[in-house]
Formats: sequence, structure tokens, C-alpha cells
Amino acid sequence: MFFASDNAGPAHPQVIQALADVNSGYAVGYGAEPGMDRVRNRLRDVFEAPKAEVFLVATGTTANSLALATLTQPWETIFCSPTAHIHEDECNAPEFYTGGAKLTIVGTDDKMAAASLRASIEGEETRGVHGPQRGPVSITQVTERGQIYTLDELSELTATAHEYGLKSHLDGARFANALVALDCTPAEMTWKLGIDAVSFGGTKNGCLGVEAVLFFDPGHAWEFELRRKRGGHLFSKHRYLSAQMGAYLTDDLWLDSARRANAACTRLATGLRSLPGVSFDLEPQANIIFLQMPRAAHQRLRAGGAEYYVLAGNPDSGAPDEMLPARLVCDWSISDAQIDQFIALARG
Amino acid sequence: MFFASDNAGPAHPQVIQALADVNSGYAVGYGAEPGMDRVRNRLRDVFEAPKAEVFLVATGTTANSLALATLTQPWETIFCSPTAHIHEDECNAPEFYTGGAKLTIVGTDDKMAAASLRASIEGEETRGVHGPQRGPVSITQVTERGQIYTLDELSELTATAHEYGLKSHLDGARFANALVALDCTPAEMTWKLGIDAVSFGGTKNGCLGVEAVLFFDPGHAWEFELRRKRGGHLFSKHRYLSAQMGAYLTDDLWLDSARRANAACTRLATGLRSLPGVSFDLEPQANIIFLQMPRAAHQRLRAGGAEYYVLAGNPDSGAPDEMLPARLVCDWSISDAQIDQFIALARG
Amino acid sequence: MFFASDNAGPAHPQVIQALADVNSGYAVGYGAEPGMDRVRNRLRDVFEAPKAEVFLVATGTTANSLALATLTQPWETIFCSPTAHIHEDECNAPEFYTGGAKLTIVGTDDKMAAASLRASIEGEETRGVHGPQRGPVSITQVTERGQIYTLDELSELTATAHEYGLKSHLDGARFANALVALDCTPAEMTWKLGIDAVSFGGTKNGCLGVEAVLFFDPGHAWEFELRRKRGGHLFSKHRYLSAQMGAYLTDDLWLDSARRANAACTRLATGLRSLPGVSFDLEPQANIIFLQMPRAAHQRLRAGGAEYYVLAGNPDSGAPDEMLPARLVCDWSISDAQIDQFIALARG
Amino acid sequence: MFFASDNAGPAHPQVIQALADVNSGYAVGYGAEPGMDRVRNRLRDVFEAPKAEVFLVATGTTANSLALATLTQPWETIFCSPTAHIHEDECNAPEFYTGGAKLTIVGTDDKMAAASLRASIEGEETRGVHGPQRGPVSITQVTERGQIYTLDELSELTATAHEYGLKSHLDGARFANALVALDCTPAEMTWKLGIDAVSFGGTKNGCLGVEAVLFFDPGHAWEFELRRKRGGHLFSKHRYLSAQMGAYLTDDLWLDSARRANAACTRLATGLRSLPGVSFDLEPQANIIFLQMPRAAHQRLRAGGAEYYVLAGNPDSGAPDEMLPARLVCDWSISDAQIDQFIALARG
Repeated sequence: MFFASDNAGPAHPQVIQALADVNSGYAVGYGAEPGMDRVRNRLRDVFEAPKAEVFLVATGTTANSLALATLTQPWETIFCSPTAHIHEDECNAPEFYTGGAKLTIVGTDDKMAAASLRASIEGEETRGVHGPQRGPVSITQVTERGQIYTLDELSELTATAHEYGLKSHLDGARFANALVALDCTPAEMTWKLGIDAVSFGGTKNGCLGVEAVLFFDPGHAWEFELRRKRGGHLFSKHRYLSAQMGAYLTDDLWLDSARRANAACTRLATGLRSLPGVSFDLEPQANIIFLQMPRAAHQRLRAGGAEYYVLAGNPDSGAPDEMLPARLVCDWSISDAQIDQFIALARG
Repeated sequence: MFFASDNAGPAHPQVIQALADVNSGYAVGYGAEPGMDRVRNRLRDVFEAPKAEVFLVATGTTANSLALATLTQPWETIFCSPTAHIHEDECNAPEFYTGGAKLTIVGTDDKMAAASLRASIEGEETRGVHGPQRGPVSITQVTERGQIYTLDELSELTATAHEYGLKSHLDGARFANALVALDCTPAEMTWKLGIDAVSFGGTKNGCLGVEAVLFFDPGHAWEFELRRKRGGHLFSKHRYLSAQMGAYLTDDLWLDSARRANAACTRLATGLRSLPGVSFDLEPQANIIFLQMPRAAHQRLRAGGAEYYVLAGNPDSGAPDEMLPARLVCDWSISDAQIDQFIALARG
Repeated sequence: MFFASDNAGPAHPQVIQALADVNSGYAVGYGAEPGMDRVRNRLRDVFEAPKAEVFLVATGTTANSLALATLTQPWETIFCSPTAHIHEDECNAPEFYTGGAKLTIVGTDDKMAAASLRASIEGEETRGVHGPQRGPVSITQVTERGQIYTLDELSELTATAHEYGLKSHLDGARFANALVALDCTPAEMTWKLGIDAVSFGGTKNGCLGVEAVLFFDPGHAWEFELRRKRGGHLFSKHRYLSAQMGAYLTDDLWLDSARRANAACTRLATGLRSLPGVSFDLEPQANIIFLQMPRAAHQRLRAGGAEYYVLAGNPDSGAPDEMLPARLVCDWSISDAQIDQFIALARG
Repeated sequence: MFFASDNAGPAHPQVIQALADVNSGYAVGYGAEPGMDRVRNRLRDVFEAPKAEVFLVATGTTANSLALATLTQPWETIFCSPTAHIHEDECNAPEFYTGGAKLTIVGTDDKMAAASLRASIEGEETRGVHGPQRGPVSITQVTERGQIYTLDELSELTATAHEYGLKSHLDGARFANALVALDCTPAEMTWKLGIDAVSFGGTKNGCLGVEAVLFFDPGHAWEFELRRKRGGHLFSKHRYLSAQMGAYLTDDLWLDSARRANAACTRLATGLRSLPGVSFDLEPQANIIFLQMPRAAHQRLRAGGAEYYVLAGNPDSGAPDEMLPARLVCDWSISDAQIDQFIALARG
């Protein structure tokens, strides 16, 4: 019963098999292997973007940092949510890769609102050369709190960015989870709305460690390649990245895995919702739940071997009915049996 | 017949198998998985260094850059060979990760001589605050030209460094190839000589993409961890790094693979040495050959499907007996049949 | 009638005279001149800190950035007010000089409260290696909104910082204005409270362009010197910096000038306070006023040649009685006549 | 008798007077003052470049670093002489300001030869994304060894750079000394040869601390302004920079001062040339001499109060006739009497 993170589950067996399949003979490295051509073409098809430039890296922090560094000057500021991974969980990687750009926090909510974004943009660059200059907007879809922007909400954000001549980046570490929840196409969730660059996650959804970065304007390609190399992120045996991504994109494995994770989360949420004393901080929309649960339930769960993050308070001692917040994440591999066992333990 | 690079060969099947073996259930990520404990302990044993700190990253450029950044201040200069990978092949990654340190080229030879190193060190920091300050020495073993420092030569370099209070780093992308050629222990080639940090290569010698960084002074550990994270090099599903390195270190696979590669190189060199007109720029010592060969031989080889780098001149047209330089690299997987076929084609 | 900024006024004639006085013959440069010894000793006396290290630079942005870079690792975050100069007015200079550190905004008020600081500190570093690490606290005294921290307030901030093992920096671009308002000693406002480094301003208070940086722990000295040099901030003809600072410190010129500026501000505030419709956003405490004034008053002032910043709205057209915010700054050189003329115009 | 450096002499009295003259009343800062308009126009006239962008900074390291950072990407390498100030005397400032670019040393001589430059350029970028990319060429005129490139030599260098599509920068810390020695116009020594950016020195030649940076392509202006600000190099009371440069350019003060310094050097060289045992390492061409002189002469000079750099060996003890190398620099203010006294002491 592991609900601590969707990056702690295994890779999908088809992805492992793809590594074995590609592991024979010699292959030119550094992304020049045939498998990368197939990945590039496949992602261009998936995104209906025949001119998009596609690159692979091994971690989400890298995908975000390199994409943003390519879009941002060192004297600019990137607009993002207070809960954005680039702000809270990357140990200043965006500041490092951009050469010292700033992040401007938009509003106080997990999801940025267009009005808040506008206010933040207006708040910068009233000082000419003295203040940070306006840089790109980075949007996280699914958010770190498990929320999903509707296409209309995304459109309002990108329209606001473009009104000021700013680029926009989508942190899609859970791109597939959002896509299946919205039931739209990749193009509809990105370039048709004016998104310029996408971090397209694979790691959390069944790969070992691979993320794609897409630029819909191919003019960024060479700079990105140089940044990737000098960041140490260009793999010599690149075939093992393209094999992962290739398998992930084959026969809609990426969409199936996301549907599994989201469905698991729905099953989990439905079960928990019926329990006395349990409440959701936010309505779950993808594969993440933020909830409040009595200490007694936490104690039963932990004693029963469930793993997840209690976000505040001491689950081990205190009043049994005190509510403690927790985060639960479902990955593609979680079984119904595990979910049901979790609910049963919580119910007590 | 692929002799272009030892990073174009496949991973060893045992390494692939280890990925499959580790691919079940949930594992805490980011290096906290049990497999990493085993790797850490195994490398401490291998190096007879029970306090060494051990980290895994996915590429050699990363291993070098993060290790050097941890040892170098931004206002310092790193002493290295003119052929060092950190100087020629990392697109300024060391400059990036150190925050703008400099590289000082020692001498003009592939192998640094202690006297040249001393001269370079003396040449810096005669200017107080105005000039670059002296930083660590980085030594590549095996060198990029396939040469191996003897233990005495290494000892002279590290002694010179320490005389000036400088740290030393070993770029061991081909650590195993050097070790089996010298027939010494890892401790003898590193900390017993005063090496402070090691990039311990796995990728070129049978892994998919994994390198270890070792610090013999554990005081560097936390800084390294932070640098790795903000560089985007901390893997969430870290088990797939530790599984590779675990398999690599099991049953001396790493040493066996290096012996294979070196033996293949010896077989290749022996065969080529007997051919008329072929001469070696440097005596091959590990798994790399730099040689001169007549254009006619190049043409036969290329027509026959051999892949390797011709380093200057046009192999396709010109006098048949003109000598053109080339580089040949043997990886662990090259077969005797391929080598013999190469020699036969070269002989004509 | 210039109230736009205290960096637009002239230098004090004694400072100019000092430049002429020092302008004969040869002097060793780069801070080794005798005048710098005198400045160092004088500042050590002024601060009752015989071991303090003292450096001169030409701009306030430089003083702040170099001081903070010396106290901050690239993976840390600096805690500061939302109105801090380092956040709003230095075009990412702290991010640049620290090599990519972050700034964490404390609360929403001009003055940081200890409780807000504690909340911000607690909010960081709950994520181990993943999030930004806690770095120093930077306190602006006088604040950018013209407010002054009491010694008790400062003490609460530094105590909070030290409770978490964090250093603290005082941005004292208007150090003298705060000191004379508080009627305390430099030691009482700095190291006796636990301040580790001070940007001690000269430029805004009668110099051409010179700021001192003081570290009470001399262990930072050599690193600061190297950072200053590689930032391009080490003056070859350094005597012209030390001459300015020397004159500034002679016969309490620095205190006299600050008293003049503060007194001018009090005269201005007193006059404006009596006018119908004028209100102060914050009670003026040093030499800066933030107020609301009817458009009609703005129009009379601007027509009469007064220069200052209207912070929002269009002063040129609209309802005469609409209130528009403005900032007024008094420097040491403003005359009573100018102030009285300003008040008369505002009164109409 | 001070021959240690041309940055240890006083400022010209007219420059000091200009500071006093500009020191009245209020002036908008940050380069928006009328004096900067005059400087900009005057330099455009001097360089016959009506569209050139002109900026002032306070130090030579800053001028070079900011100019080069504007022309260089972080993954590029700057081609320069082994004696270049940017390489030897700026504590990695160019690496810092460029965000981690590299410097490639061209040849082994003080003056770069076009053939050596070509070889260095050809040596880079044979490795695609793996190696440093080719960046601008930086030429020092007068060189750090006191040599002057002829216009033909400069033209060969810039033609070589342009052949590869590279920009070129002139480090003119001693621009005026070179100009009067070559008896050419500023345009002939810069943009007519294809120079893209110039560091135009004032500090060494009679100012307190001011250098101009000129870009002949105005497209670099805004980026330079932002880089200057975030480097802390934008002066609030900018009038004191423009006043210096204004006086420097008035009535050809800059040319007169350079002629004085060069003439002083010629007088000094002529006198020393006649002494037994004295030899010049390089023929003096501007205001710097590198020579060999017997220890006995050094001892007489030092005993007599002469100040200059002995570059190797111990002048205080050893054989009286042993030759020791020294550097002598003449600034604009050195008197004939001091020179003659120096020669008399050397003669003994």
C-alpha cells in the first residue's frame, strides 16, 4: 500500500522489455540513433506539430530547467504558482540554469488565476532597468496539489502572457494524467492555446527515467542542445532514453497508464469519502488526494503498513479524533486490492 | 565492426537483467533505496575506504562537473591536460557547474608531467587578488589518447598538487581499463596516492548510463548532494541507477569487461602492427589506438562497413598511399571475429 | 524642489574637496593606499569593532550583492521584505552574484515581523535536498518605505535568524538616517544585535559613489576580496573611494548630513500634514514620505517645477479632488526654502 | 620616481575640476543626466560613428567583462592572447559575467598573429555539441607587454574572425596611447577594421575611474544596460562618471595625456638604452618598458626610492652583475626630472 509518490512505483514491463530489445549491437549515441527519430516523429504526430523540436532528458527537474533556461534571460523573472515544482522542489535549479533569473510567485493558490497573473506581471517592470524584467509563465498541469486547469483556464493564462509578449511553458510531469482527465488532445492542451514549450513527463507514469521537452518553435533547438550538453544531460548511450519513450508512446501505453492511475485515485477517493471524519482539502481531479483524516485512522493505516505522507502533526500520539492532513498519490501500478485494503484500514 | 567509441556498444546482459530484477513493487526514491546501500558498501569495500561518500549520476560529464564544482571555488582555476574531456568535450560544463572557474592547460602532451604541472601552478597566483587562484588538479586515467599514468607518475602529480595545498580529482571514465592494465588495486590508484575525488565510470564499460562519484573525505557529501539535485541529476527512480552499478560490481563484471576491452585492443593492435604502412602515434595501453594508415586501407575498411573516426584528411579521394590518422576504440562487447575481419580488410 | 530621490542631490563640498586633496602624486592602488587604512580604522572605531573587516565599493547594489554572496550558498534562499531593494531594484543582482540563490519574501509588509520571518523560515527546508536551503536574512534599515526598525524589532529578527543558525545582513543604504532617528550607536544597531554584515551607505548621504561593507567576522575577508575583484568592483585608483569615505566620516559629516535630511523631511511632513486632503500612508520616520494628495495639488506642484514620483494614476487629468499617491524624499542638501515653496504650492 | 603602474598616478586637475563643476543642484541619475548626452555625442563624433551606443563604467575589468558578456554565449569560448588582462588579471571576471564561457589562449606571444588565431579557431568546434563553441576575439591594444598592433595586423585579426562569423572586441585600457603612437583616427583603429565593441579607457590616462564601452551595432544596447545594472555597475549619481569622461574628451585632454605618457616612456627608454648591461625584452612602443638590468642598478634605484616591479629574482642579494627583469610604466603625470633621476640612479 504505497501512496507516497508516483515516482516510487516500478516501470511498466513493456518499458523494461524495450530496453532489452534495444540492447544489441552498436548504435551511434547522443540522440542520433534510429530510435530517437521514431520518438521524434511519434511525438510530432501525437502533438499534431510536424515542426516541433523534441529532446529527451532523464529527470523532470532537468526538463523544466533546461526548457525555462532556453526561454528566459538571466535578468528576467519567471511567473509561477506558489506550489510549483520549479519553486519548491528543485533546489534552485531554474535559478542555476537560467544564470540567475528570479521566480515571481503568482497569487496564493495552487492554480494560478489569470487575474493574479496579470497583477503579478503588472507588478514587475515598472522600474525600467532597475527591476527584474518580465519573463515566461510556467504552468503546472496537473498541479502539485492534484488540480487540473481547464482548457479555458489555460487559455486565459496564455492569453494574458501573450498580451505582454511573454512565452509560456507547461510543466507536464503528469501531462498524461491531465490529458485523460480533460479528454482532449495534446495539441488542444498546448500549442493551440499558445503554449511554447512542454515538459512531457514519462518517469512518474511508467518509465525508469525519461522526460521529453518539446518546443513548438524550432528556433530554440540548437541552444537547447548546447544547454543540455553543458548541463551533463546528453546521454552517450541515448538509445536507452529513446527506447523508454518509444515504448511509452507505443499502443497508447502512456494514456492507459494515466487512466489506471486516475481511476485508482477515483476508487480511493470514493472509498475514503464515505468514511466518517474524512474530508478533502481539494476535490481530487487526477491521481493525487489532499485530505484530512483522524489520527486514529492514520495510526491504523501506518500499523497496517500503508505508506504516504502525513503533512503536519504527529500521527503517533495525541487525541484520536484530531484531524491530520495527508497526501495520497496513486501511480499506474497500484492495485484495486491495495486500495481496498487501505480504505478498510482507514475505516477501522 | 564498430570501433568509433566505447559508448556505442550495448550494455552487458547482466546489467539489463538487473533492471528487470529490481522492477517490482515500490521503492523509496532519490538514493534511499536498499540497492544504493549495497552499492555504497560494495564501493567502500572495493576501494578499501570505509568512510568514502558515494553518489551515482547518469553521465560522465556530470560526474566530472559535480565532483570538480565541489572541490573548486568560482575564482579558482583547475589544472588539466590539453586533451582532458573536461576541457575539450563538455561544452563548458565545468565552467558552468563551478560558477565560472577557469581551466589551466598543463603542458602540451596528453599526459601531464609533474614538472609541467609545477610550472603551471607556479604560473598562477603571482598576482594576488587579481589573477585566478589555484584550484584542484584533474587527472584523466585512461587519458583521452589511450595512455595510462603509472602509479609513480600519478604519485608525482598528486604530490605536486599537495605541495601547494591543492586537491586532486581522477576522471576515471575508463577507470577499470586502467586498473586492469596496471594490475593494481583501486586504493593504490586513488586515495593511497592522495586522490581526493574519483569519477568512477560505468557507462563505457557495460552499463546503460551510470557513473559513481567518490569522495574520500566525507565532508563533501552534503554539498555534493545539493549540487546534484539543483543540477537536475538526482533520479527519483534511483533504483535503476543503483541496479546498474550493483550488477556492474557483482562478480567482478566491471573488471572482466575491462579485461575484454583491453584484450580486444591488444589483438587489434597486434594485427595492425604487422601491416605495411601502419604506424601507431602512441603505444596503445588500454582500449584505444591512435594510428596512421594508408588511404587505400581506409577505403577498403569503409567499403567493408567498418566504423571509426578518420581524424584528418579525406579518406575518399587522394593518393592511395597517403597516411591518414585514425582513432580505434574497443569496447567490452567487440568480438574476435570483428577484429579479425577489420585486420583482414586493412591488409587488403 | 527636487524630492524624487536622495541620490540625485550633489555631493557634499567637503567630499569633493577631499578628492582634490588626495589628487597629488602616486599612490599604490587597489585599497593599499594610506587613506584606506584610515578609513578602516575609523569605521572600526565608529562601530566599536576592532576586528571588523572593511571594504569599499561604489554602488549600493554592489555592496548588498557582494555581502550577500559571501554569506549565501547558491542553493540557499535569502529572507527579505517584499519591498527590499535587493528584491525589487537590483535586476537580479543578488541572484547573479550568489550563483543562483533564491529570495524568499517575508510577509506582505514593508517591515518584516519576527513572526513572519519565523513562518517563512519554517516554510523552507521541509523537503531535505529537494527544496531551497535556508540562507541569511537581509534587513533594510531605513526601509524602502521610509520606516525604521526599533532596536527591539531588529533584535527579534536577528534572534529568530540565529535560532535557525542563519546569518543576518543589514542593507544600510540609509544607515545614518536610521541611526540619528534612533539616537543609538552603530554597534547597538548592528553587531550587538547579532548583525553579521552591513552595507554602510555613503552615496545617498553626500558622497559621489561609495559604500562600505563591514563584516564583523573577519573570516569572510579574503572571499569578499576575490568576489569584489571578479565582479569588477576593485578600483585601481582606490584612493578616490577612500577619500570620499574619509571625508564622510570626518567631523561627523555623515551624521550631520543625515540629521539635515531627516529634519528636512520632518519640516516637509509637518507642513503637508496641515493641508486638507493630504494623508500619510505610513508615518514618516526618516527622510521619506509616502502620502496621498489631491490631483489638484499635484498639478500645482508640477506646474511649479516640483519633481517627485506620483506612484499611480494620471496627475494631468481627472477629478481635481481624486487622491493620488506620491513619494517624497529629502536629501541632505534640500533647503528650507525649497520645502516651504513645495508646501505653499501644495496648499494652493 | 613611480614607474610601477599607470593607474597609480593622480587624475588630471581638469578632471577633478569637472567633478566640482558638476556638483551643484539636483540631477536625474543613472545616465539620464545632460552630461551623459554630451559624452555620448562627443564619443560618436570622435569615432565618426553616429549610431554607436556608449556606456560608462568605473573600471576596466567591468568594461571588458560586460562588453564580452554581451557578445558571448555561455557555451562559447573567447579567443585572446596569453597575456590578455581578461585572462591573467581579472580573477575570472569574464567567466563570471558570461555565465561560464571559456577563454582560448591564442599562440604563445603577447601579440596574437592571424595565423595563430586561425589555428585556434580551427581547433575549436570540431566536436559539434560536445566542445566549446567559437565566440568572439578579444584584442588588447596596447598589449599588456606594451606592444602595439599595426592597423594591418589588426585588420588581419578581424578579417580572420569575420571569416568564421565571429565578433571582435578591443580592450583599449590604453586606447589613447595606441592611437597617438599609430597616428590614426579612432574609426581607423576600430570599426573601419571590423571591431564590434571597444573598451575605451580613461582611468589609466588621467581620470579617477571611468571607462567607456562602445558598441557600433546599437542592437546590443538594452542587453548591456541590463547586464550593467545587475552587475552593480550602474551609478545612481552617474553625473560624476560623465563629468570625468566629459573633461577627458574636452580639448583633446585624452590625446595630450597619452602623448605625454608615451613621450615620457621614450625619454626613459632612450636614457636606459645607453646604459651598459641594460637590454629591452621588447622594443617599447607606447608607455611600457620590459627590460633586463643588472642587480646593482636595481639596488641603486630602490635605495634611491624608485618604485617599479622587478619581475623575477631577488634584487636585494646576489651577484651585482646578474640581470633581473623589470617592468616600467610611465603615466601622463611623470616629470622629466623624475625620469632623469631614475636614469642617473640606474647609471650609478
